[in-house]
Amino acid sequence: MAIQNLRVLIVGAGAVGSFYGAILHRAGAQVSVVMRSDVEVVKQYGFQFTSPLGDISWHPQVVYTQADALKAPTFDVVILCVKVVPSIDRVALLTPWVSPDTTIMLIQNGIDIEPPIAQAFPRNPLMSALAFIAVSRVAPGQIEHKAYGRLVMGMYGEGKVPTGLVEAFNAGGIDAKATENIQYERWAKCIWNAPFNPVSVLANGADTLQMLDAPQGETTIRAMMAEVMAVAAADGHALPADAADKNIQVTRDMPAYRNSMALDFLAGRELELEAILGNVVALAERYQVATPHLDTLWGILQMRFSPSQI
Amino acid sequence: MAIQNLRVLIVGAGAVGSFYGAILHRAGAQVSVVMRSDVEVVKQYGFQFTSPLGDISWHPQVVYTQADALKAPTFDVVILCVKVVPSIDRVALLTPWVSPDTTIMLIQNGIDIEPPIAQAFPRNPLMSALAFIAVSRVAPGQIEHKAYGRLVMGMYGEGKVPTGLVEAFNAGGIDAKATENIQYERWAKCIWNAPFNPVSVLANGADTLQMLDAPQGETTIRAMMAEVMAVAAADGHALPADAADKNIQVTRDMPAYRNSMALDFLAGRELELEAILGNVVALAERYQVATPHLDTLWGILQMRFSPSQI
Repeated sequence: MAIQNLRVLIVGAGAVGSFYGAILHRAGAQVSVVMRSDVEVVKQYGFQFTSPLGDISWHPQVVYTQADALKAPTFDVVILCVKVVPSIDRVALLTPWVSPDTTIMLIQNGIDIEPPIAQAFPRNPLMSALAFIAVSRVAPGQIEHKAYGRLVMGMYGEGKVPTGLVEAFNAGGIDAKATENIQYERWAKCIWNAPFNPVSVLANGADTLQMLDAPQGETTIRAMMAEVMAVAAADGHALPADAADKNIQVTRDMPAYRNSMALDFLAGRELELEAILGNVVALAERYQVATPHLDTLWGILQMRFSPSQI
Repeated sequence: MAIQNLRVLIVGAGAVGSFYGAILHRAGAQVSVVMRSDVEVVKQYGFQFTSPLGDISWHPQVVYTQADALKAPTFDVVILCVKVVPSIDRVALLTPWVSPDTTIMLIQNGIDIEPPIAQAFPRNPLMSALAFIAVSRVAPGQIEHKAYGRLVMGMYGEGKVPTGLVEAFNAGGIDAKATENIQYERWAKCIWNAPFNPVSVLANGADTLQMLDAPQGETTIRAMMAEVMAVAAADGHALPADAADKNIQVTRDMPAYRNSMALDFLAGRELELEAILGNVVALAERYQVATPHLDTLWGILQMRFSPSQI
């Protein structure tokens, strides 16, 4: 399908969603959005961006709210960009917008986050994607794209990546690639996220070097990384033997920074604890892999936050 | 020695110290105190108590500050009742008040807290004691004794409990007993404190049932208790096989409550993390006992609090 004819809907056009919408818009696709907040501002002014890519500000073709589904046409690709948190029913969000031929694409963090969507839409092609990006909403309709933007995507189960979609993302200005094994990519990101993100929360928003340089800090993080690797291997996605070393080294080579979950915590926003950590612990239990360090982290987090907040 | 002639000095007459001072005063001993704050109020009004024991308000024989040591007589027993925290140099606090014949008594929480004192005062008899008490300072010189008061004491190393001291505590109205094995008693208390106290801090001041009833909550606490038992056994103080079961059951049988470390944390006070947990982890390393759950807890706490706060 020519990109100009590709009808795309971004469900959850926050910072991440509006960024990838901008990229596909730039590539020539017809891109609409569904939003819960900032609707009137975006209808009037579109999304205003600051970005190292230049001026990527854009107007969606249509700005929908969830109530508008009956008025909407069918879409070729529906991209879900909301956080994976208990307060958001992802299936309910998607249902009104998915037609029999719609490809569903998840641009979301975490491990084992696809099954509820695959079960709810068993006949729709399901794409799973990971974004490597630093982007945030600074005001209604105003987004600051700080750095990066890489997208790795693959099919979850049967089906094929829609023709031209990867190319469209690349044409829009980011580094996008298709992979045969998106779960491997998720584990490769999980080895960093599962320790650093939740630990930063219990450490009251500590930055990367506060965590690594505390007494027993690196040891603690490395013990958790080793457990993630063991679960990944049991899941059929063994990471390279030096994966932990490399992740520690890359983190040490960067200036100290607060990860996104630390920032969410400090801002009082809901945390993706289950997607980032809880699902890893659940898989460990399924595969009978011992993960005492991750179990402790998860156990304390569940005491710290009521289930509805996890 | 007749109790009337026993010269006692309480170093650190906070809630706990002024309580046991009251008990010995009631028994007829000559009890003075060293205080850092509330000095003028206590000099004028003494310690005012509310207590289920009745009116145990009392005036110390002398209220000292640390600067008064040169003026002081010698003491038969110097009782140290300060918290075991990095900001307090216990040896420096004791040094001006300890004569060659002085018995030093520690009424302090934690594991392996005696060695620095034993090394600094190798010729003085050293008593180690555990208090089971709910008491707090509600205003300068005003103490609320809510419940309990039991004291278990024993020698650390050579020497004997001074004649009449246990009897004096009992005569003063509490349940006091001497033990041949105070380290066993410390481990028996540690199995509860080492998990519940620090976990409650990371769980943002959670109470006992919030911790136990969270998903994986009891499992997490029990895993830590099992590790404490393993370290205790390696230290030569094996606890009964059902020690964890009993501790969980007793905790469940009580109404939900916030432990003292949770309260200290919520009030922004310094925490006895090293005495309660860090020393257990250090002993585990010395004895080569694997304690991954406690290691995780300790690792995260050291990221959460700078070393000076632990």
